[in-house]
Amino acid sequence: VRESELLHNIAQRSAGMTSGFPHVLLGPGDDCAAVRPPGGSMLLTVDQVIERRHFVPGTPLDLVARKAVARSISDLAAMGATPWCALATGALPAGFAPSDADALCVSIKKWAEHWLCPMVGGDLASMPDAASPLTLTVTAIGVAHPSGHVVTRAGARPGDHVYVTGALGGSFDRATGQGRHLTFEPRLRESAWLLDTFGARVHAMIDLSDGLGRDAGRIAQASGVRIELDAASIPRHPGVADWRSAAGDGEDYELLFCIDHDATVPETCPPTGTPLRRIGVVRDGRGCVVQTDTGSHDAGDMGWDH
Amino acid sequence: VRESELLHNIAQRSAGMTSGFPHVLLGPGDDCAAVRPPGGSMLLTVDQVIERRHFVPGTPLDLVARKAVARSISDLAAMGATPWCALATGALPAGFAPSDADALCVSIKKWAEHWLCPMVGGDLASMPDAASPLTLTVTAIGVAHPSGHVVTRAGARPGDHVYVTGALGGSFDRATGQGRHLTFEPRLRESAWLLDTFGARVHAMIDLSDGLGRDAGRIAQASGVRIELDAASIPRHPGVADWRSAAGDGEDYELLFCIDHDATVPETCPPTGTPLRRIGVVRDGRGCVVQTDTGSHDAGDMGWDH
Repeated sequence: VRESELLHNIAQRSAGMTSGFPHVLLGPGDDCAAVRPPGGSMLLTVDQVIERRHFVPGTPLDLVARKAVARSISDLAAMGATPWCALATGALPAGFAPSDADALCVSIKKWAEHWLCPMVGGDLASMPDAASPLTLTVTAIGVAHPSGHVVTRAGARPGDHVYVTGALGGSFDRATGQGRHLTFEPRLRESAWLLDTFGARVHAMIDLSDGLGRDAGRIAQASGVRIELDAASIPRHPGVADWRSAAGDGEDYELLFCIDHDATVPETCPPTGTPLRRIGVVRDGRGCVVQTDTGSHDAGDMGWDH
Repeated sequence: VRESELLHNIAQRSAGMTSGFPHVLLGPGDDCAAVRPPGGSMLLTVDQVIERRHFVPGTPLDLVARKAVARSISDLAAMGATPWCALATGALPAGFAPSDADALCVSIKKWAEHWLCPMVGGDLASMPDAASPLTLTVTAIGVAHPSGHVVTRAGARPGDHVYVTGALGGSFDRATGQGRHLTFEPRLRESAWLLDTFGARVHAMIDLSDGLGRDAGRIAQASGVRIELDAASIPRHPGVADWRSAAGDGEDYELLFCIDHDATVPETCPPTGTPLRRIGVVRDGRGCVVQTDTGSHDAGDMGWDH
């Protein structure tokens, strides 16, 4: 891979970016990009996807690029933020075809712009061996909701109701390696609608990357509260056998949020039709449990540690 | 590696960050960091360092972390920017010792703060094999010089004088893999002094990562000019045999800048004592050449493509 040629191609393709996104003052091709700062607080996140860890060999590169971008965009949604701009890196196995590298860059740019998040910079480099895993990172920068409310994991209060968007479980098809973990839609519109509608009454939020149990446990820990989930209420995708799978599979990228108990949350998000399901309550105490007919099950250690 | 424990450690250590850097509203530990936007234009860059590509196995982790941070900081310096905040990722070989992962995080945070660039977020993940190369990325965000002048590669004009900071060559010791490529000082203070002193008369600038020849060629290409360098004027580190080594070795991370011919540039940068050497001139035309007693040598293809 002649990286200088690839980077030149990227810069050429990005030449029109400063007109499509007026806050981008200087796109790819120099030592840095230049971007007008947002008016509100900036939200910043970085995430990575690694071959044989986050996707199986042979996954279409367009879906690898999509997942890399979508994971970071999902983190912005979890704070109630709107995308502003992004940067990406690709560490390519030795011998990676230049045409594949180029296609990967096209896909990363395309998906970033799909979520209105112009890709203003990046870097490509070769790894030492052909067996090295293709590794992408995406740094996403967002701007806080116009109200100024930034939804962290730490704001849940006893009495809050706990909701989840969409349905859970079965995101990764073990037979093929495909599935929703590659094609999920980051919940940007749902997040924006929640903040538009309920403002600071949305007390805490997280996107479910490592499983409902573990991620709910993170809100409980950060907020210093106890979260009690009702197993029967947890929405499951078709074919997901039980609440344990739904709570433990991970990579759902749905939003889990704790909201003031006075808030009247509809059954679906009006602009998108995405289900909004109440699945639990916040209590005084510590930890996260799932309650079934047979008792209380500790949920904080379920799911992925990755 | 239990990533959740490592990330928890990082969040704990970063707890005081929001007091040390008042523009950091929320540090590591949530879905995103929150940062007050800078008053001026934001400069953004991301770079990566890969084991066996950018450093040899066995390099002390503190120096690996230093290089990863310093490369991105150097890109900010090349635009005349000041560090604002940064994010990092680590993709760790399978079986990487948790204590080493922790030490790496400590070093990344330490070096970022050394250059007044608080590390507000990041991600750690394991690679599939023990033979996978340790791979770090650092995204650095800066703020433009208070004058608003952003120095790109594209502003060089015929008649400009071409200068370089410091000395060139021999950055990578082939016998040991050590050397200045691990310990260079990003030229932040020199860049700030140049902008403070000469403002928009600094027409173009780049940091020398891939060698003087190739990087000067990039300014020439971006600016649509011809750069003529004088071989005898190129400052060399002790032991660097000739101008070809100085111009081609790469990883110098010195600043190359094109400045109005009316500017009176001193022999050293007053706040730091770093030499400022005039090594060439900008002409009408295309390309980059080095002139010696024996003639003109095309320099645009010298150096590293990495």
